[in-house]
Order: sequence, then structure tokens, then C-alpha cells
Amino acid sequence: MTKVVADITMSLDGYVTGPDPGPEQGLGAGGEALHEWAFNDDPVDAAQLRTGTERSGAVVMGRRLFDIVDGPNGWNDEVGYGAREAGSPPFFVVTHAAPDAQRLELDFTFVTDGMASAIEQARVAAGTKDVVIMGGGDVIAQALGAGLVDVLHVHLAPLVLGAGTPLFHDTGRIPMRQVDVQVSACATHLTYELG
Amino acid sequence: MTKVVADITMSLDGYVTGPDPGPEQGLGAGGEALHEWAFNDDPVDAAQLRTGTERSGAVVMGRRLFDIVDGPNGWNDEVGYGAREAGSPPFFVVTHAAPDAQRLELDFTFVTDGMASAIEQARVAAGTKDVVIMGGGDVIAQALGAGLVDVLHVHLAPLVLGAGTPLFHDTGRIPMRQVDVQVSACATHLTYELG
Repeated sequence: MTKVVADITMSLDGYVTGPDPGPEQGLGAGGEALHEWAFNDDPVDAAQLRTGTERSGAVVMGRRLFDIVDGPNGWNDEVGYGAREAGSPPFFVVTHAAPDAQRLELDFTFVTDGMASAIEQARVAAGTKDVVIMGGGDVIAQALGAGLVDVLHVHLAPLVLGAGTPLFHDTGRIPMRQVDVQVSACATHLTYELG
Repeated sequence: MTKVVADITMSLDGYVTGPDPGPEQGLGAGGEALHEWAFNDDPVDAAQLRTGTERSGAVVMGRRLFDIVDGPNGWNDEVGYGAREAGSPPFFVVTHAAPDAQRLELDFTFVTDGMASAIEQARVAAGTKDVVIMGGGDVIAQALGAGLVDVLHVHLAPLVLGAGTPLFHDTGRIPMRQVDVQVSACATHLTYELG
């Protein structure tokens, strides 16, 4: 059965980017340290990346994240879903208006009638696989606050950023069940079920 | 060699209490869910409590936390260090002025010349054991920000509180090394080395 999975990397103090994220530095000032786990040879980390990709039947993202991944420093043949163009899932971008152009030759749909609609369209597209909400933090917070997330998958990086984009802005209280924890040399991969 | 260990339970969104903590409800509104791991039969959780107590040669705490543990709903024969009076370590309370009286028959020293002094006095008292900073969040944040912490031990509870006392208020960026992770049924016990 399709689940809606929010999947993101977070610092111990709850930030998913450092200060001033944008097309020039997608993860903000000093934020690249968050993703150190995704660029090493640890088999636990590699398995996280692989299963994360394999279960994605469709991906939901926010407009700011789209602008970053589609921007000149975004995904390419080696990084992100751009690296596996043939097998990429469809992407649903929550936005006020579609962009005039896109760089990546991937299947982007621009959804202008809100988060719930984007998730529903993604659910149809996902078939038996999962819908993965990949960010940014504000989009995941909005989905969490609206009760639209079944599973929260947090890759916990071993640092305190001190500033940046918080993951849990205005979500209110969310009880959860810890269902899986995988530990690698430089991250702790936490899985929680909600609702 | 004595280490300065900050040891505290935190929600996934970085709070160490719910809203409005105080002598009536030490962990704030709904905050008691944070400590669920400390009151069950999971051997991993029990080992965390045991080793945490065993390594404590001296304990540093803030004045608000003292007022809670020494208050009418605080430590007793079953809960907290009050449960093991004979073997309790000395406590160093960072405060502006010593209280007029104390309820608990434990070894409290009230330190009025600041955090660094409290840690130094605790270090002398600890002998070969560790100095444990047990909170509150503001005291740990202050010690972290001042570079006085060697090891950060976070018991990560599976919930988002949405509001309360943040652990990492104004600490700035802190790089760390993940050195141990222990997983129980309802918490993830994270150990980081700093500096």
C-alpha cells in the first residue's frame, strides 16, 4: 500500500539547511555537512540511499527546492535524481505558478492548487510504490501539520548548525512511533510512523 | 580522565520540556512523554540509566531545575537521585543566590560565580568519574556555547513537542563526532564527542 513518506536530512538542532539557502548554495552556509553521510562508502548509508530511491513511486517537492535542483548548481549526471534519468519517478512541485522553463529533462508537474492536491496526484502516479516528500523543510512541516504524512524518515547528522531552515516550524505536537533506527559511521537514520 | 558530559532527553524537534515547565510540572505541558524511556523495562534503557548514574562523580544543574527536583513534586525515594541517597554524588547548582531552605537531604552546593566555576568545582569533586551537566536546557546550551562540554549524550524521544524549552538556544554551530548510538523500543540514545 502506498505510504506518504517525508524523507530529509536534519541537524541535531532540527535544521535542514544552514542559513541563506538558495540556488547558489542549496543547503545554505555550512549546510553541506548535513549530507556527508550521502557521499561516503558506508554500506549502511548506501543502503539508505538505495532503498530511499527504490521505494519512490512519485516525489513531492516545494518550489524553492525545485529552483535549487533545476538550477545551474543542482542535479546532474552524478548527483540527485538527475543521475538516474531513465528510471526517475515523476515529480510534483507545489508552487504558485509554473516556471517559464526547466533545465532538467525529468518529469516535473507543477501543482498550483496546494499540498494536498500535489500529494493526491503523486499517489495516483506512484502506483504501489510510495510518495516521497523530499522537502524543503517548510513543505514537510506543512504536510506534517496537515496530518498528510504516514512515515517520517529523518537522517540525523552529527552537528549543531545553530541557524537555518527548521524542519518542524509550526507543526504543533506530533506523537510518533519509532519503528526503525539504522546507525552508520556518521549519521543515524530514524524512521517514525505517524497517526 | 574526568569528562564533562551533558546528558539530557530531547524531542525530535529539539525541546527538553514542553511549554510552561515549573515546580508543578517539571517537564512542562505534555513533556512527561519525553521520559517514557526511563520508566519501562527495556534493558537498553535500563543500561542507559545505570551507566549514566555510575559515571556521575558530580552533577551540575541550573537553579530552575533545582527548584523542580527539590520541590514538592520533585525527587523522592523512587524517582531521581533521591532514590539512592546513600550513593548520591555532590550537586553544584548554578544560581544567583542560595535558597533559604532545601527539602532533599542531598549534598547541594550553590555556586554564585557562574557556570565555569560550577564545572570546575564539580571536576574537583568528581575524582576520576565524570562531571554530568543534567540541565536545564538553558544551562546545557550555555555550557555548549562556552565550549565547556566534552561529551553530549542525548536521549532522543519519538515525538515532536511543537513548543517548550529548546536545547540548543544560541549555541552557534557545533561540529561533533557521533561515537555511540543505542536503540531501545521507544528512544534512541545518542553520544557525541565535541571539540
